[in-house]
Amino acid sequence: MHLPDNPAHAFVPYPAAPVAHAVSGPLAGLTFAVKDLIDVAGYPTGGGNPLLLAVSGVKTSTAPTVQTLLDAGARFVGKTHTDELAFSMNGKNAHFGTPVNGGAPERIPGGSSSGSAAAVSNRLCDFALGTDTGGSVRAPASHCGLFGIRPTHGRVSLERCLDLAPSFDTCGFFTRDAPTFGRVADVLLGADAAPLPAPVRLLRPVDVWNLLAREVAGALSPALARVEAALGKAQPCDAALESFDAMYWGFRHLQGREAWMVDGPFIERFAPPLGPGVAERFAWARQVTDEQVTSAAHFCDRYRGHLADLLGRDGVLVMPTMPDVAPLLAADESELEAYRNAAIRMLCIAGLSGFPQVTVPLSSRLGAPLGISLLGPAGADRSLVALAGKIAAG
Amino acid sequence: MHLPDNPAHAFVPYPAAPVAHAVSGPLAGLTFAVKDLIDVAGYPTGGGNPLLLAVSGVKTSTAPTVQTLLDAGARFVGKTHTDELAFSMNGKNAHFGTPVNGGAPERIPGGSSSGSAAAVSNRLCDFALGTDTGGSVRAPASHCGLFGIRPTHGRVSLERCLDLAPSFDTCGFFTRDAPTFGRVADVLLGADAAPLPAPVRLLRPVDVWNLLAREVAGALSPALARVEAALGKAQPCDAALESFDAMYWGFRHLQGREAWMVDGPFIERFAPPLGPGVAERFAWARQVTDEQVTSAAHFCDRYRGHLADLLGRDGVLVMPTMPDVAPLLAADESELEAYRNAAIRMLCIAGLSGFPQVTVPLSSRLGAPLGISLLGPAGADRSLVALAGKIAAG
Repeated sequence: MHLPDNPAHAFVPYPAAPVAHAVSGPLAGLTFAVKDLIDVAGYPTGGGNPLLLAVSGVKTSTAPTVQTLLDAGARFVGKTHTDELAFSMNGKNAHFGTPVNGGAPERIPGGSSSGSAAAVSNRLCDFALGTDTGGSVRAPASHCGLFGIRPTHGRVSLERCLDLAPSFDTCGFFTRDAPTFGRVADVLLGADAAPLPAPVRLLRPVDVWNLLAREVAGALSPALARVEAALGKAQPCDAALESFDAMYWGFRHLQGREAWMVDGPFIERFAPPLGPGVAERFAWARQVTDEQVTSAAHFCDRYRGHLADLLGRDGVLVMPTMPDVAPLLAADESELEAYRNAAIRMLCIAGLSGFPQVTVPLSSRLGAPLGISLLGPAGADRSLVALAGKIAAG
Repeated sequence: MHLPDNPAHAFVPYPAAPVAHAVSGPLAGLTFAVKDLIDVAGYPTGGGNPLLLAVSGVKTSTAPTVQTLLDAGARFVGKTHTDELAFSMNGKNAHFGTPVNGGAPERIPGGSSSGSAAAVSNRLCDFALGTDTGGSVRAPASHCGLFGIRPTHGRVSLERCLDLAPSFDTCGFFTRDAPTFGRVADVLLGADAAPLPAPVRLLRPVDVWNLLAREVAGALSPALARVEAALGKAQPCDAALESFDAMYWGFRHLQGREAWMVDGPFIERFAPPLGPGVAERFAWARQVTDEQVTSAAHFCDRYRGHLADLLGRDGVLVMPTMPDVAPLLAADESELEAYRNAAIRMLCIAGLSGFPQVTVPLSSRLGAPLGISLLGPAGADRSLVALAGKIAAG
């Protein structure tokens, strides 16, 4: 039997297949990994589910986003574990195991881009692709102590990638350091059509910060000060519309409906045994009603308008990425679900609006990493990456 | 996404790959399926575990036993689900799901050759290959109402097949009817070097029959009568040596040690999440001691001698295949484990000795199938299949 090395349980142990890359280019010398939702020729795309892996076969085409990286000189090193069907935020895949959080090995890595965050945080490669529908790059980046971006919806191609909820799915990436974050952004994002001006108008959404426990807010306050030192004093504002509950349910209803439209036929046909949490969420998604979807779609439109008005062309929210550091590996399913539900209240701001968000590894608590986020107007992705670099250098 | 049909959840849904077969031959017109422990070129070999499937890649060679069937004109239709790493007897794979028992859909199919038994019992193919280490053909054959054989150890090649415990692993097969059972036996077994004489000396191991609950013995008594009508009056004997407990532990210690030698490196390197029951059994297998193995090996040698003396060259045991009909799908893990432990006491007679056993679908209880077995001396495989045909025709 072929037994490849698999440190940190980051990679799906597929037999290596040759993947060519340019000998020179802006990413020459860098290595990268790809979440196992995205096609790479010569490999299956398993999506974190055994029957999906069986159905996949070996792909014969490579996703354009991966090809762009290869053409820029980056070297592909492997496909990384994902939460099952990407419908989780904790990284504990019941069938394939839990990748190791390189920033806090006794804690969950976060997910669903768990293996990508594990590969980068354990220094197995320089950067990695993930996807982010409801937080699947931002959560593991914050938990593993990495730079991470959820781009503006639609900005980075998801062609030849398994969907979760197409209206919310985005392709992002992780790095350990700001210079690499910038190099990859140059290749995947290019320049912004309307870059953020300098200085930006920094906004501190008081209602989001108030979601935090006091000790978490305390742990983040030096990070906030550092952001303000680099970008200017943040003005208080409110980010929510109506309430975080309304936003939470709006996001969940829309994501749930789309997830069921995407994966329901597979689930109904194959009855795949789904891991804890995932099974329950799909069962819930199945029964989201048309009325809930219609109402949520109206809310989502209004929220996008609200946030566009708030940010204008120069506004940037500075806010916590997640409610806290990663839960311990030993946390039970109900703790993880409670944590997820708290996290969605913060993460759905970018989700509902489609606006870009970067998370910067500036804080820690209990010895574990904790990110702080910048969220800007649609299309400001590359500018946000530059701001992250400025803050990190400051 | 490619979504093949998958009735009865029998097949691993691999994308179809062309597998050539002879246009004529003794098995022309028959279709067959192959347990997903055995290599077929163009397909992975998943062994019922997601990480093992990932490691597998697509095989480029076909196992000789499969090739023999193709060369005889049989048409390959797919690879079938197996219990995880073949280390279970119930067919409930936690990652890939539970194939449907075509003889009793509300009950487990039995395993580990669960998908093969499902494919044949649901009429999705004419015969199917399985493997039997501790009962993995005999149990699902009895539970699904099929003819099944565990051949003499070593008689049918297991080259290019994932091992469970090589000293006990065998390659067997399932059919719905006696004529097909005979045709496949002609190809895979050929003629016996020393065929059983006619009439055989039929033996009824009283101690094995005494393991049954009264209602099960009652359900099997017409089947016993039918065997006796075809083969002659069965003489009482004892099959056990010392006690069934001694046999049970001897078998379990040897199988456990070998299973850990085979799968331990994979389990230690990848820490694959293992399904309920399987995880516990490997944890148990890991701590079998050298003293237990030495003692069990001595016992096993003595048992083989004991059974060889009992059977001579003309003796055939007629006995229950399993303690009862298949447990209900709703049975919990502790019920399944108790059932497994009772079953091993009967199944280990062939396991410890390496002697061949065929099970014949002659009985039922509670509306579910129940097999009766013939167990003969080493090398009498084809003769036993012929006896099964004679009984079925009688």
